[in-house]
Amino acid sequence: MNQLRYGVAYYDEYMPYERLAEDIAMMQEAGINTVRIAESTWSTHEPQNGVFDFTSVDRVLDAMAAAGIAVIVGTPTYAVPTWLVKEHPEVLAVTPRGPGKYGARQIMDITSPAYLFHAERIIRRLIGRVCKHPAVIGYQTDNETKHYDTAGDNVQHLFVKYMRERFGTLEEINRRFGLDYWSNRINSWEDFPAVTGTINGSLGAEFARFQRGLVTNFLAWQAALVNEYKQTGQFVTQNFDFDWRGHSFGLQPAVDHFAAAEAFDIAGVDIYHPSQHELTGTEIAFGGDLTRSLKRSNYLVLETQAQAFSHWTPYPGQLRLQAFSHLASGADMVAYWHWHSIHNSMETYWKGLLSHDFKPNPVYNEAKTIGRDFARLSDKLAGLQKQNKVAVMVSNEALTAMEWFKLPDGQGYNDVVRWLYDELYRMNVECDFIPPGCTELSRYSLIIVPALYAVEDEPLERLNAYVHQGGHMVFSFKSGFTNGDVQVRTAVQPGIISEACGVTYSQFITPHEVSLKNESGEYSGEDREVTSWMELLTPTTAEVLYRYGHRHWGQYAAVTRNRYGNGTAVYIGCMTSRGLLSSILKSAVAEAGLWGPDQELSWPLIVRSGTNRQGDKVRYYFNYSDDPHQVQYPYGTAVELLSGQEAMPGATFDLEPWGVLIMLETSSGS
Amino acid sequence: MNQLRYGVAYYDEYMPYERLAEDIAMMQEAGINTVRIAESTWSTHEPQNGVFDFTSVDRVLDAMAAAGIAVIVGTPTYAVPTWLVKEHPEVLAVTPRGPGKYGARQIMDITSPAYLFHAERIIRRLIGRVCKHPAVIGYQTDNETKHYDTAGDNVQHLFVKYMRERFGTLEEINRRFGLDYWSNRINSWEDFPAVTGTINGSLGAEFARFQRGLVTNFLAWQAALVNEYKQTGQFVTQNFDFDWRGHSFGLQPAVDHFAAAEAFDIAGVDIYHPSQHELTGTEIAFGGDLTRSLKRSNYLVLETQAQAFSHWTPYPGQLRLQAFSHLASGADMVAYWHWHSIHNSMETYWKGLLSHDFKPNPVYNEAKTIGRDFARLSDKLAGLQKQNKVAVMVSNEALTAMEWFKLPDGQGYNDVVRWLYDELYRMNVECDFIPPGCTELSRYSLIIVPALYAVEDEPLERLNAYVHQGGHMVFSFKSGFTNGDVQVRTAVQPGIISEACGVTYSQFITPHEVSLKNESGEYSGEDREVTSWMELLTPTTAEVLYRYGHRHWGQYAAVTRNRYGNGTAVYIGCMTSRGLLSSILKSAVAEAGLWGPDQELSWPLIVRSGTNRQGDKVRYYFNYSDDPHQVQYPYGTAVELLSGQEAMPGATFDLEPWGVLIMLETSSGS
Amino acid sequence: MNQLRYGVAYYDEYMPYERLAEDIAMMQEAGINTVRIAESTWSTHEPQNGVFDFTSVDRVLDAMAAAGIAVIVGTPTYAVPTWLVKEHPEVLAVTPRGPGKYGARQIMDITSPAYLFHAERIIRRLIGRVCKHPAVIGYQTDNETKHYDTAGDNVQHLFVKYMRERFGTLEEINRRFGLDYWSNRINSWEDFPAVTGTINGSLGAEFARFQRGLVTNFLAWQAALVNEYKQTGQFVTQNFDFDWRGHSFGLQPAVDHFAAAEAFDIAGVDIYHPSQHELTGTEIAFGGDLTRSLKRSNYLVLETQAQAFSHWTPYPGQLRLQAFSHLASGADMVAYWHWHSIHNSMETYWKGLLSHDFKPNPVYNEAKTIGRDFARLSDKLAGLQKQNKVAVMVSNEALTAMEWFKLPDGQGYNDVVRWLYDELYRMNVECDFIPPGCTELSRYSLIIVPALYAVEDEPLERLNAYVHQGGHMVFSFKSGFTNGDVQVRTAVQPGIISEACGVTYSQFITPHEVSLKNESGEYSGEDREVTSWMELLTPTTAEVLYRYGHRHWGQYAAVTRNRYGNGTAVYIGCMTSRGLLSSILKSAVAEAGLWGPDQELSWPLIVRSGTNRQGDKVRYYFNYSDDPHQVQYPYGTAVELLSGQEAMPGATFDLEPWGVLIMLETSSGS
Repeated sequence: MNQLRYGVAYYDEYMPYERLAEDIAMMQEAGINTVRIAESTWSTHEPQNGVFDFTSVDRVLDAMAAAGIAVIVGTPTYAVPTWLVKEHPEVLAVTPRGPGKYGARQIMDITSPAYLFHAERIIRRLIGRVCKHPAVIGYQTDNETKHYDTAGDNVQHLFVKYMRERFGTLEEINRRFGLDYWSNRINSWEDFPAVTGTINGSLGAEFARFQRGLVTNFLAWQAALVNEYKQTGQFVTQNFDFDWRGHSFGLQPAVDHFAAAEAFDIAGVDIYHPSQHELTGTEIAFGGDLTRSLKRSNYLVLETQAQAFSHWTPYPGQLRLQAFSHLASGADMVAYWHWHSIHNSMETYWKGLLSHDFKPNPVYNEAKTIGRDFARLSDKLAGLQKQNKVAVMVSNEALTAMEWFKLPDGQGYNDVVRWLYDELYRMNVECDFIPPGCTELSRYSLIIVPALYAVEDEPLERLNAYVHQGGHMVFSFKSGFTNGDVQVRTAVQPGIISEACGVTYSQFITPHEVSLKNESGEYSGEDREVTSWMELLTPTTAEVLYRYGHRHWGQYAAVTRNRYGNGTAVYIGCMTSRGLLSSILKSAVAEAGLWGPDQELSWPLIVRSGTNRQGDKVRYYFNYSDDPHQVQYPYGTAVELLSGQEAMPGATFDLEPWGVLIMLETSSGS
Repeated sequence: MNQLRYGVAYYDEYMPYERLAEDIAMMQEAGINTVRIAESTWSTHEPQNGVFDFTSVDRVLDAMAAAGIAVIVGTPTYAVPTWLVKEHPEVLAVTPRGPGKYGARQIMDITSPAYLFHAERIIRRLIGRVCKHPAVIGYQTDNETKHYDTAGDNVQHLFVKYMRERFGTLEEINRRFGLDYWSNRINSWEDFPAVTGTINGSLGAEFARFQRGLVTNFLAWQAALVNEYKQTGQFVTQNFDFDWRGHSFGLQPAVDHFAAAEAFDIAGVDIYHPSQHELTGTEIAFGGDLTRSLKRSNYLVLETQAQAFSHWTPYPGQLRLQAFSHLASGADMVAYWHWHSIHNSMETYWKGLLSHDFKPNPVYNEAKTIGRDFARLSDKLAGLQKQNKVAVMVSNEALTAMEWFKLPDGQGYNDVVRWLYDELYRMNVECDFIPPGCTELSRYSLIIVPALYAVEDEPLERLNAYVHQGGHMVFSFKSGFTNGDVQVRTAVQPGIISEACGVTYSQFITPHEVSLKNESGEYSGEDREVTSWMELLTPTTAEVLYRYGHRHWGQYAAVTRNRYGNGTAVYIGCMTSRGLLSSILKSAVAEAGLWGPDQELSWPLIVRSGTNRQGDKVRYYFNYSDDPHQVQYPYGTAVELLSGQEAMPGATFDLEPWGVLIMLETSSGS
Repeated sequence: MNQLRYGVAYYDEYMPYERLAEDIAMMQEAGINTVRIAESTWSTHEPQNGVFDFTSVDRVLDAMAAAGIAVIVGTPTYAVPTWLVKEHPEVLAVTPRGPGKYGARQIMDITSPAYLFHAERIIRRLIGRVCKHPAVIGYQTDNETKHYDTAGDNVQHLFVKYMRERFGTLEEINRRFGLDYWSNRINSWEDFPAVTGTINGSLGAEFARFQRGLVTNFLAWQAALVNEYKQTGQFVTQNFDFDWRGHSFGLQPAVDHFAAAEAFDIAGVDIYHPSQHELTGTEIAFGGDLTRSLKRSNYLVLETQAQAFSHWTPYPGQLRLQAFSHLASGADMVAYWHWHSIHNSMETYWKGLLSHDFKPNPVYNEAKTIGRDFARLSDKLAGLQKQNKVAVMVSNEALTAMEWFKLPDGQGYNDVVRWLYDELYRMNVECDFIPPGCTELSRYSLIIVPALYAVEDEPLERLNAYVHQGGHMVFSFKSGFTNGDVQVRTAVQPGIISEACGVTYSQFITPHEVSLKNESGEYSGEDREVTSWMELLTPTTAEVLYRYGHRHWGQYAAVTRNRYGNGTAVYIGCMTSRGLLSSILKSAVAEAGLWGPDQELSWPLIVRSGTNRQGDKVRYYFNYSDDPHQVQYPYGTAVELLSGQEAMPGATFDLEPWGVLIMLETSSGS
């Protein structure tokens, strides 16, 4: 990407009447320079088995080319046609809940040969047809691909082969997965029971890993197909999405994003988030940081909300704030799902940039200002690079294992991830995400490890070494508790990382009226209650930051800090309030030498920065609140790009409610 | 009906010991003059395929005739015998939840030929046997008939034929139902997928309409069968029931009552409602108004509660208040379900007029006073006629569509209907119900339209014309939003009715701390918070009654009133508190010239009135509270029928807690 | 049993590395003298059909024998091997929720011949192999056996035969079960529908009784098999468990413990209970009293929690308090589930005496003190005998019937049982449990009958006679309401017991703002609100203890007491607060002449007592709180066994938080 892209998903197929010319005119007025098409309309493009009709694709491509609007073409494979399901019912995934029913999207068995045969044919026909069209700049494979819990007999069959391939013998499988328990041993391959009934979390987690592997393979297969047609300068991307809790929330359980991203030229993502008084920017930053980390590069926001969902209508200014927030995380494209509001079916209330009446509206009007600024500032803002010194280590394996072993209050892995990430975000500490397999830890001064519940020995040993060599770490409770097979380590907990952390424990409980007592005087806030889970820590070499305030547990430590070699490792043995966690993280950030002017501000005032393609520092200032604020600019001489106003070090700027400032540093400051 | 009927359902078949003579004696003592029998005991009457035994019917008919008690005979088809299900398992409905299981009632596929064959035979045998018996005054077909979600392969087959019949081509179906979306197109009739999996609310709503049509046809078929036997003076009725929320609540989703009622001589209904401190009379009025509207005539309350359910035991006086409340809505019969409390199975705690011990009890004793008064006042109270000037427009189509697209807080169509209806009830504004197809709007001075979410153009154009010609309207939010195919209109919202309402909007949100600001000074209550849903209205020609009190939405109107032609249309863009709605409706009632002395009273003091067969005005006064009240009688000279006391205009009457007064006007008053 | 046993469940098969010698050394250090093995590892002992491998059993038995630790061997039949399910899928129970899936334990059809054949073979092989081993002292059949809701076609087939056997004719069945209702009549045996769909609670309750019979038969069959091998001095037991609400709560719905216990030499049980600030001792007493009552003898606690579940980690002292509390109810063994914490699968967080690290920990260290005291005091404490004068009558039939007919607030039978039992426990009134069939009522001075909802006439007549002859009774609401077929009695309620109770009622309601008014002045507490259910009682000969404080129900009695013959019967017509119930029960206890010094204390100070094998009185004093207390010892000269301190009548003793005193009376006191 060498320019900022402002885009929409566009469905000519869904239009209630001929709209193309008028839509393009309105897009141009709003500065839309890219559209995404075709990813969900297989049955329109192949109305019968082997009968193709690309009319709507052709006419949109031609019209867009004429208007100078670029097009990303999606492979239309994530929603299957009626004829395919009637001819080959086996394309529907059989899940633990039973056989599939036609109706929704994303209901296929992604291993079904009937599905793969037909998917390959429509991909080759569509991509072969469009690849040389001047409007086409790239491709999206499928959409929000997952394994859809496919677990029928054929998938079970593949899983057994996978297990034999991976572990060799049943003896090894019985041992590693503890199958003596409850008479679950498998003593002959023919006896391998369907895994969907298992109560063995180790086996269940392995099946989930296998299922994620199916997704990686499926996407790599699609990408390879498209690559056969891809022309110079075109790209192939995938629209990744997140754990969904009514909006994008955390790490995607069903896909290993790091593995799956390898097949693609550039990572794409969709990010949906609360709005109005609940807009905090956190999901934009979280999703952006994670997606940027996949290929350590810029990424595309292929979908985000326009007027999405009835309750997400943005306040004036919010659409603009959101768009620049995406750029500030390293996005090179911000695209809305979708251009127009669809008039019926599932997503009627998931509104596009236009309402159902296709008329200009307040949100569309605000988009016009964004389009203008994107076009005007593209040179300066595209391709933002970051050299973050903080990383958060995340793991699909830990997530799955904690689905089997939730915290007693029902919280899971992503709750712990967000508990930690959100505080970093709020104190303007930008971070990357890294998987446990990451071997380049030395890039970072501080690594945060939320609940790394299931993990092989090697990553933990690398983390010990990282601290010893001068790195700084923060571990949360439950880290290192089990090995990669979700077997609790037999060593004294927290196992391998005890070495770096200088603590041990063997008991853990659900807190009841337990508050934290501060020995170091670092935190004097009110909200000291332990909110969920507590490990009764005994320091070996660590100093105690907090103890439990409780008649019986008062002898145990709750939070510790250990000097180990040249570094330090903080261990947080319990879930705390946001304020208390913030205090712990502040110390860790400072200890790692990362405390700076940006950290003097905190949410709702957000600062995010990077270096543009000219090598200049770009700093975004965001006001995530309904109240006006002032910020004092602490860096070198700059120009505020939106207003064109010059900024001297120490100058004070007004940040309107939901406002944005963009400082382009023109000389090095204090 | 030319007399008041006081009745019970009677099950000789369920008796633990011989009771008939004693039961009849106790009925006579309580003034019970009608019993309903036989509707749920098919397996007793036909113990094996083709073996009939009508002993219990014969002996009850004979005994009742001897005692002068009339009998309504039900066709026993809503609970199928064990032998039928064993011989023909296909009589059980296959639903979206899977195959049926024998056990409960109302589990049949009402399209199954095996079921229809056997149902026809038992109907012909039973009705043929009893039709000339002197005790028999009428028939009830089946009971609380619905489609029981029947959706098996055979029903899907019928549905496809129905779709072809109704829409002609797949092209038309694809277009109208927006099936390009998510690759749902059907390009060959063989590909038509089972509708039970659909995510397309337009298609789903059409299937629901088709299912309601099955009920209409089934009931018409039963009525036609019974009509073959019906003797002069006998009637055929159906026991309709309502949306059930632990009690009768709103419009029945599974039956089009207006269409189904056409086949019957008189409408019947069952009404169950909260009691004790929760008794308000609202469900009695709602159910009565709706049932009276079906054939614009008097109706039968075929079932209502005696001591029903453990927590519904009435306070002293409430049974009596309830009985007269039914009459005040136009009922000519009040019958209890049921005579005696059943000693086991599902409805053990749904108690009859007698407890399980068959002894007189406080409720039975109170029934005796009712029976006496019904007999004494039958001439004056039977056949009450009403000429209501207010109508509420209700629609099965809107209801179904809002099941697919609920309000964000989970509320549905009937919540909106009741929100409006209940305030009318509380201010003593009596009303009829009309369907969208009603062409005789000019009967009414004021029409209330709750959330008419899905509707063809024509009814909306009729409503516009109605206002233009001087009618008064109140529309709630979401009215007119989609067409009859549940496709959002492409016109600026609220679409067609914008013309009469003089407002437009394109944005809507879930309220958060939004209160209404009164520009007209009409409402000074405290409860101004918007409780659910808000449309951001912009008046074109309307005046603003309320705006939204909110930093960002304050520029938009919430409630408007528009003069259009000779009438006015109020548009309520959000869900409000009860008090604020009351204020809006009061203005509308006054504007329509319908404010009178009855509206000076309000719940818990309820006034309902009509004209008896002698042409005299009858006015019921009810006290729905635990406190005594006084009412000043504002009309012409009357006699209070229960006490025989004369009432002069302006005279003051005491209304006891849960008390009743019945004024028969003998000359025109002030 | 002639000694106290301190035990653990031990799973050599689950060990992550060779542990046997070290485990035994640690057991010896903790005083563990008994282990239970083998009940859940069938697939290890029979890895393929007919291939046996008892290595882990042999080596554990040999090592335990060498260490002087006794072994209880379990038949490994409650978790089936993979090969059995693959070879014979029909061994999985088909339940109302559908076919079974392999994975969990306790998923079998206990009537399946394939299962029974293979179960018999593994039992004969295992028990035949170990029965003469010197380490083996006894056997446990299966584990926590239930019927697992087995209800497939074959079970239905057995049920029909059972019905014919039990009732003879369909006419009788139709009559007793009220099958005319909703056309449920069965007029030919071939028509008998699958009972899983029934809506008839009478039939459903009969099926539950039949299912409990399957369990009784299955256990008797297993016990008979094991008895073939049992050597002199060995015993056969079963591990019964309770209604589970996150912990042991009440009577087990799926097993008739009284009937099932007949096949065994000694009753065994598992008891799990809340801990930390929620530890009250109630479940220990409840489970112990019930299990002791099964064979009117001492029993084994085969499983109880060590560090079980994350939130159940005991406070210091609690493990010890729990262990002695079991003894105080008559247990002769206290065994933990389990020795070590399992490293993966379902029960990872259900921790053993050792944590996953196998290291000594605070709980293990506390166990060492218990083991020492058990060994030291075994002679004095083993074989505790009780002659309780109070009994609580409990009934599986009443429980099942109330599952069909719950209280309106959702509470069921066990809620009523615990409501009554818990107050007895808190006032230190020890009791036995008796079934309705008990004919030795004269053993007791006071019988408490919670909600004996479904019961034949005979037990009720026995209860009437018991009162007449001088017994004292307390009945709760709903007692005697239906007969054994769950048919409401046609007599005036409460039916047969009206005679003893001197009250009648025919109405009952859900209370709303009803408080109890005290006529007798016995209760002056604040918490007088009726919490659930109320019957409107009219005394015939009874005196009124409490009336309902309510405008309309104030004429009715709520709680009455009746002198009948030489005894008294209290009838409690509603659910009250704990305090008010306590007041009622105190009076009843006093009336029965059972008020003594122990009742002057109350929870958290608990006294439990009995006579040891030497004929000496042993009294346990427990402090179930975090606060120190003093108790004045009111009995004859004694020695406090833990400290060796002498206790004179009237002496004062300190009870530490969660502390224990054991008084061995050496001479008769005041």
